[in-house]
Amino acid sequence: MARFLVKRSQKLGTAPGSLIFVGKQKIDQVMLEFFSYDKSGILNKEIKHVGELKGLIDSKKVSWINHVGVHDEGAIESIGNFFHLHPLQLEDILNTTQRPKFEETDAYLFIQIRMLHLKEDGSLYTEQLSIVLMDGVLISFQEIPLDVFDPLRERLLRPTTKIRLRKNDYLAFAMLDAVVEQYIFIIEKFGERIEHLEDQLLERLEKSHLEQINLYKREINFLRKTIRPVRELVSQFKRSDSAIIHSTTQPYLRDLEEQIILATESIELYRDMLNDLLNLYNSGLNNRLNDILRVLTIFSVVFIPLTFLAGIYGTNFKYLPELDYRYAYPIFWLVLIAVAVGMILFFKKRKWL
Amino acid sequence: MARFLVKRSQKLGTAPGSLIFVGKQKIDQVMLEFFSYDKSGILNKEIKHVGELKGLIDSKKVSWINHVGVHDEGAIESIGNFFHLHPLQLEDILNTTQRPKFEETDAYLFIQIRMLHLKEDGSLYTEQLSIVLMDGVLISFQEIPLDVFDPLRERLLRPTTKIRLRKNDYLAFAMLDAVVEQYIFIIEKFGERIEHLEDQLLERLEKSHLEQINLYKREINFLRKTIRPVRELVSQFKRSDSAIIHSTTQPYLRDLEEQIILATESIELYRDMLNDLLNLYNSGLNNRLNDILRVLTIFSVVFIPLTFLAGIYGTNFKYLPELDYRYAYPIFWLVLIAVAVGMILFFKKRKWL
Amino acid sequence: MARFLVKRSQKLGTAPGSLIFVGKQKIDQVMLEFFSYDKSGILNKEIKHVGELKGLIDSKKVSWINHVGVHDEGAIESIGNFFHLHPLQLEDILNTTQRPKFEETDAYLFIQIRMLHLKEDGSLYTEQLSIVLMDGVLISFQEIPLDVFDPLRERLLRPTTKIRLRKNDYLAFAMLDAVVEQYIFIIEKFGERIEHLEDQLLERLEKSHLEQINLYKREINFLRKTIRPVRELVSQFKRSDSAIIHSTTQPYLRDLEEQIILATESIELYRDMLNDLLNLYNSGLNNRLNDILRVLTIFSVVFIPLTFLAGIYGTNFKYLPELDYRYAYPIFWLVLIAVAVGMILFFKKRKWL
Amino acid sequence: MARFLVKRSQKLGTAPGSLIFVGKQKIDQVMLEFFSYDKSGILNKEIKHVGELKGLIDSKKVSWINHVGVHDEGAIESIGNFFHLHPLQLEDILNTTQRPKFEETDAYLFIQIRMLHLKEDGSLYTEQLSIVLMDGVLISFQEIPLDVFDPLRERLLRPTTKIRLRKNDYLAFAMLDAVVEQYIFIIEKFGERIEHLEDQLLERLEKSHLEQINLYKREINFLRKTIRPVRELVSQFKRSDSAIIHSTTQPYLRDLEEQIILATESIELYRDMLNDLLNLYNSGLNNRLNDILRVLTIFSVVFIPLTFLAGIYGTNFKYLPELDYRYAYPIFWLVLIAVAVGMILFFKKRKWL
Amino acid sequence: MARFLVKRSQKLGTAPGSLIFVGKQKIDQVMLEFFSYDKSGILNKEIKHVGELKGLIDSKKVSWINHVGVHDEGAIESIGNFFHLHPLQLEDILNTTQRPKFEETDAYLFIQIRMLHLKEDGSLYTEQLSIVLMDGVLISFQEIPLDVFDPLRERLLRPTTKIRLRKNDYLAFAMLDAVVEQYIFIIEKFGERIEHLEDQLLERLEKSHLEQINLYKREINFLRKTIRPVRELVSQFKRSDSAIIHSTTQPYLRDLEEQIILATESIELYRDMLNDLLNLYNSGLNNRLNDILRVLTIFSVVFIPLTFLAGIYGTNFKYLPELDYRYAYPIFWLVLIAVAVGMILFFKKRKWL
Ligand SMILES: [Mg+2]
Ligand SMILES: [Mg+2]
Ligand SMILES: [Mg+2]
Ligand SMILES: [Mg+2]
Ligand SMILES: [Mg+2]
Ligand SMILES: [Mg+2]
Ligand SMILES: [Mg+2]
Ligand SMILES: [Mg+2]
Ligand SMILES: [Mg+2]
Ligand SMILES: [Mg+2]
Ligand SMILES: [Mg+2]
Ligand SMILES: [Mg+2]
Ligand SMILES: [Mg+2]
Ligand SMILES: [Mg+2]
Ligand SMILES: [Mg+2]
Ligand SMILES: [Mg+2]
Ligand SMILES: [Mg+2]
Ligand SMILES: [Mg+2]
Ligand SMILES: [Mg+2]
Ligand SMILES: [Mg+2]
Ligand SMILES: [Mg+2]
Ligand SMILES: [Mg+2]
Ligand SMILES: [Mg+2]
Ligand SMILES: [Mg+2]
Ligand SMILES: [Mg+2]
Ligand SMILES: [Mg+2]
Ligand SMILES: [Mg+2]
Ligand SMILES: [Mg+2]
Ligand SMILES: [Mg+2]
Ligand SMILES: [Mg+2]
Ligand SMILES: [Mg+2]
Repeated sequence: MARFLVKRSQKLGTAPGSLIFVGKQKIDQVMLEFFSYDKSGILNKEIKHVGELKGLIDSKKVSWINHVGVHDEGAIESIGNFFHLHPLQLEDILNTTQRPKFEETDAYLFIQIRMLHLKEDGSLYTEQLSIVLMDGVLISFQEIPLDVFDPLRERLLRPTTKIRLRKNDYLAFAMLDAVVEQYIFIIEKFGERIEHLEDQLLERLEKSHLEQINLYKREINFLRKTIRPVRELVSQFKRSDSAIIHSTTQPYLRDLEEQIILATESIELYRDMLNDLLNLYNSGLNNRLNDILRVLTIFSVVFIPLTFLAGIYGTNFKYLPELDYRYAYPIFWLVLIAVAVGMILFFKKRKWL
Repeated sequence: MARFLVKRSQKLGTAPGSLIFVGKQKIDQVMLEFFSYDKSGILNKEIKHVGELKGLIDSKKVSWINHVGVHDEGAIESIGNFFHLHPLQLEDILNTTQRPKFEETDAYLFIQIRMLHLKEDGSLYTEQLSIVLMDGVLISFQEIPLDVFDPLRERLLRPTTKIRLRKNDYLAFAMLDAVVEQYIFIIEKFGERIEHLEDQLLERLEKSHLEQINLYKREINFLRKTIRPVRELVSQFKRSDSAIIHSTTQPYLRDLEEQIILATESIELYRDMLNDLLNLYNSGLNNRLNDILRVLTIFSVVFIPLTFLAGIYGTNFKYLPELDYRYAYPIFWLVLIAVAVGMILFFKKRKWL
Repeated sequence: MARFLVKRSQKLGTAPGSLIFVGKQKIDQVMLEFFSYDKSGILNKEIKHVGELKGLIDSKKVSWINHVGVHDEGAIESIGNFFHLHPLQLEDILNTTQRPKFEETDAYLFIQIRMLHLKEDGSLYTEQLSIVLMDGVLISFQEIPLDVFDPLRERLLRPTTKIRLRKNDYLAFAMLDAVVEQYIFIIEKFGERIEHLEDQLLERLEKSHLEQINLYKREINFLRKTIRPVRELVSQFKRSDSAIIHSTTQPYLRDLEEQIILATESIELYRDMLNDLLNLYNSGLNNRLNDILRVLTIFSVVFIPLTFLAGIYGTNFKYLPELDYRYAYPIFWLVLIAVAVGMILFFKKRKWL
Repeated sequence: MARFLVKRSQKLGTAPGSLIFVGKQKIDQVMLEFFSYDKSGILNKEIKHVGELKGLIDSKKVSWINHVGVHDEGAIESIGNFFHLHPLQLEDILNTTQRPKFEETDAYLFIQIRMLHLKEDGSLYTEQLSIVLMDGVLISFQEIPLDVFDPLRERLLRPTTKIRLRKNDYLAFAMLDAVVEQYIFIIEKFGERIEHLEDQLLERLEKSHLEQINLYKREINFLRKTIRPVRELVSQFKRSDSAIIHSTTQPYLRDLEEQIILATESIELYRDMLNDLLNLYNSGLNNRLNDILRVLTIFSVVFIPLTFLAGIYGTNFKYLPELDYRYAYPIFWLVLIAVAVGMILFFKKRKWL
Repeated sequence: MARFLVKRSQKLGTAPGSLIFVGKQKIDQVMLEFFSYDKSGILNKEIKHVGELKGLIDSKKVSWINHVGVHDEGAIESIGNFFHLHPLQLEDILNTTQRPKFEETDAYLFIQIRMLHLKEDGSLYTEQLSIVLMDGVLISFQEIPLDVFDPLRERLLRPTTKIRLRKNDYLAFAMLDAVVEQYIFIIEKFGERIEHLEDQLLERLEKSHLEQINLYKREINFLRKTIRPVRELVSQFKRSDSAIIHSTTQPYLRDLEEQIILATESIELYRDMLNDLLNLYNSGLNNRLNDILRVLTIFSVVFIPLTFLAGIYGTNFKYLPELDYRYAYPIFWLVLIAVAVGMILFFKKRKWL
């Protein structure tokens, strides 16, 4: 619930650029992970405070600062001051309800995107990722330690991987690639469920199917809202002529753009499929209603005249000659059977039977 | 009601540029609020007539004239003459049913937008805001004193705020930012109600839900009509190369553009959700109809043959041998039970039970 | 009826540029109204024939020739020859079923648009207006004398109005402005009716509402077809760099463009509303069907077993022990009541009552 | 039927540019009609073989070769060789299922379009027209002699018509103009039928109306598929800067573009109308279902309790005191009437009566 | 089933450019087919390993290497190394779930597309085709030996065909042309089935029709997803200014673009038709429901009062004077008939009969 809410009312009336956390605090303590690498080696260190960075950043290497926990406005302000970030971007980092975007300033590139995780119960967990990409340094901000970057960290530790041979623009690409890969994985999972639902629906109609269609519609809408702006983001990243982005990274960005186009097209396809399922469900309901009422009508129409005839000979009129006739009862049965057979033939002709 | 009406028939046949108030007068008296500020200090004064402005406007400071009440054509004309505004813009200021827009003339920028307020009963109150932005002066026109600018006024009074350090282009931005922030707050509120309605609908179907879906559709359509043109307005403001807009204000306008994109996308999302709710409601109705008619059919089909059989043995035929048979009555019951059980098995097989 | 028909079959096979009237003749006689004005004075004269214009047109003044009645192919040809109009434009003037358009030739601007009038019975009356705008001269063609230009004629007669101070480009603008103003007035009227229909629909469902929804859909579609191309027309007029259009007229054309955007957006809004009303109507129908069938089912299901039981004790079996039992009848009633109460509790549990 | 089929499977696996007839042969023999004209005179001659053209084509005059029957691959190849046409265009001429298009090569312009004829039984007959427009020569290819060019031929024979005074670009325009004029005529006819259907539907609902709606949908879809690409075709023709097209033809091409825009817009309008009719039909059905079931429910609910009461006093309980009471029968009737009246009042209150 | 799944989860967490097969292995062994040709001659040879190519590639001829089976990552890597292909393209070749695309690098053009085959049971078989087009060499990758290129191979073997006279850009075109030709053939087949379904639906409504509509919707959606990106692909191929593409190939690419536009437009048309069929089916269901319930209502309403009257005279009231009346029974019958006739007239008036 409340997934589509913007929920930023706490900021009502504050000045633009005010550093106010918007969202739900998810961890107690800010954590700072530091990497510094080039082809020759890599340093990986957990740090306490942004001040420690002074001695650590080596302008010839790639420095990656992974800041976990964006609820601490003071910590964000410190890092902002250290790297001379604009208050508007700091405000955006603190606001965990941002629309995904790519922004370019004179000194750095700024990216915001949502990371998705699929929980074991099949529901989605979502977290905002902000990336600042400046000369020699990449700073990433996320809400909780869990992320999709573990395979990337492993590649960082191996000396001959592409990521170790390249600059921080490739690192930024690799992070986005990992996020988008996860999108595709999740769409794949939802797709499986939707296609399974279709099979069930074709086999047997149940009320729970309607609820599931509705549930998947909401999930797909949520995915759509999350993923669609990323297409624009990646396209802007690719087209940027910032000096930070090297030409050898271009093919990778183009590859990333293909992935995100595939993701958005798949989402549109599943939206269409859900609408088709709803139509199928409704037509199925109508079919069943037809069946039910056909049964009712056939039974009623066959027996109504029979019961009427029985009523006639159940009357107590003194002068009712048929009652005294010797073969009245068997003839009566013959009439009943004739009427019933006539009705049934009528339905056969109408192709109701 | 009548919210979507254009209601400008009183102007039929008048010349373009005619100064005629279009709308509903909401206050008795025009009020003029005057601010003049720079980093060194601020003057805040209520004035009676536009003539008093002569001594007050200091070309080195930012002057903000907030004109409340646009029903008084003479007052608007006076201010128009004082600042050399074009009659077409004066006409627009007097017409409270304008489509939001941004206009650029040689001497000033002209902005029209609707301010929204959420009343305590949950309904919307709406008021037109017109802004004239010229060298050193900002004139705002609104219909009633109530507005969304109180936090902004407070910041004006504090000496070190950004707004005090900057020119009137930033003031214009800050006003639009406050208006758009209010939009997002209101969409958030409607979103909560729509998501709550969905939960209710999934739990239990009621006729009032249909009325609510319809009501929210109208409200969302009204919000859409009000907010969508603002996206274009903000984009034009941002792209304007007027000398009045300083480069340091650009990042703020870009930030504002993001907000309004978020607002319009959320509105589209809630529109889709309302259509989905309507589909859900209709499918729910059909489901219930199925249930009702299944019950009717099962009862009818089980009892119709039984009642027919009872009718047979209620006839008064003289020669009806079964009636005299000793065990006829218990056998009759056995037949009835057998028929009933047969019918029920029939329905079990059809999965209606 | 037949409002959407193109009805030009009489032209089938004729050469392009053939002067053939297409439409329905609405008056007997062509009428020619002549105005010649500048700030110093105005001449207003009815003329018989285009030849009289020779002495009347003063190249230093604005000449307006208002030609009423386009069924007379000879008259149109005469005026065409007099002013050197292209046969394709003359053909268009004679064809009263044209799509609204703006055309620019070396010598003149050519505009076609539909004027709407709201008749007293609430239906629409429509007439084609063609305008030729050339150096110093404006020629307008309409089908019947009734038009929306009376307020404009009054302003012409007053010496200090804007229209008297300006050239014929402003006159053309003022004519289009009057036409568009009328559009907005008419949309406003339809909007009122549609919103009134919604109120009625929410109160009580009637078959006539369906017919009204359908009727308004057609009217809105007609308005849409008539008004939408005007947006393009006005935009082309505004963007034209013809020497006939003075820069002081530009703000007025921009104002006109805003009006027509407002008009088209309102039409789209009312189209959406009509679709919503149709959905509301259909859901309302389904709701009522549910109600009707719930009543039928409850009554049937309560009484069907009771009637069956009565039937059992109406049989004439000789050996039917309950019939002879002293308290059989009161017990029978108790059983009936128990069954009925049971059924009612069943429905209560299902929330059908 | 099978109108939407592409039906080109006979070409599967052949080389691009293979000269293979695709379609249904409609005449036995190819016919070649030849015209050569300028203002001074006209020659009209039927020829047997393309070789005869050698002596006939006069480079100072306009030559029009009208080739009827495209099933003869050899004939098409001969004409292709004679005029140096590209195999891809020859292939297209032989394929009667082409999408309408405009193509420009160095030597000639190539146009393909479908001609429509309305048969007497109201159905459509369709035939492909290909036009090659090169310096001084126009070659047209059609499938059967029947075409829409007879009025054009008549104008050719008259010495002072525009067509005789101009070059073959005007001839090409005049042919397209004739084709498009026929489109508008046919849309007009369909429009009449659709509007007539709406009137019938509003008067009385019949099953055949559903079939008609479906039939018209298919026809309109067919028209749409045929006509929509022509808009693009005409626009490309108009914008072409080929030396073959003279500037005096431009206004005529612009006029043609207007016609085709009108045609496509009318088709969209009738599509919308057919969807509205389907909605109207469905709502009408639902209305009738309501009526039917209201009648059933009222009758059932009034009589069910009455029949039950009669059943009670038809039981044969020995001790049933009411039966012996002197005024039981009249009182019984009073009770029956009271119950019936009560039920009827109940329905009145619910506004079902 | 699972046709819309992206199914690439096995790649989750791997580095971009990792050579991992994604899909289902369909053959055991990679096969390499080699062609080398110019107008003077052709060599066709099956090879085992990419190393053999060294002696075979003649830079003056066109070399076509057809690589069948993309499950073998080592084989793909070898060929990639041999021709200096970028790892991202190798990754794409190994991933059989790619979105169709055209890519241009400095050294080669890269195309991916899906080949479709229609199996004998009417279902679709699909396989990915990747093409690398570099100076003098074309490398194609497919999953199984079956393909649509046999007619093309035959043309290659004949010395005077266009394909032998031209370079490898024409070969690439011819391959795409064969693939697109197959698309059109398949759409044609589906179209036939859909139009056949429409005929059946108009004749008689069956539950299986709903399933078929749904099935065709899925198939058409699959075709759409497969074919739509090809339009973009072909357009990019046509617009490319790579030196590999000769100007004489341009008209062929334009022809190909026409084919693919025709294919996509036909798919949209059949999508619309399927939606129309679903509407037709639902309206048909509603029609039948009306019929069923009209029968039920007529029977019930005619017999309900009759049965009630019989019940009255079946009561055992001691003092029931009609029972003793001599002509009561015939009069009773007259009353029954009168009531029945009255009811039937009532239905006639309502036009239900
Ligand atoms: Mg704020
Ligand atoms: Mg803000
Ligand atoms: Mg921001
Ligand atoms: Mg995280
Ligand atoms: Mg979105
Ligand atoms: Mg679909
Ligand atoms: Mg539907
Ligand atoms: Mg006016
Ligand atoms: Mg105006
Ligand atoms: Mg205005
Ligand atoms: Mg206010
Ligand atoms: Mg809007
Ligand atoms: Mg949706
Ligand atoms: Mg004509
Ligand atoms: Mg014409
Ligand atoms: Mg014309
Ligand atoms: Mg008139
Ligand atoms: Mg239109
Ligand atoms: Mg809506
Ligand atoms: Mg519907
Ligand atoms: Mg072929
Ligand atoms: Mg071809
Ligand atoms: Mg072709
Ligand atoms: Mg023909
Ligand atoms: Mg089309
Ligand atoms: Mg419509
Ligand atoms: Mg990976
Ligand atoms: Mg990848
Ligand atoms: Mg890739
Ligand atoms: Mg293959
Ligand atoms: Mg359609």
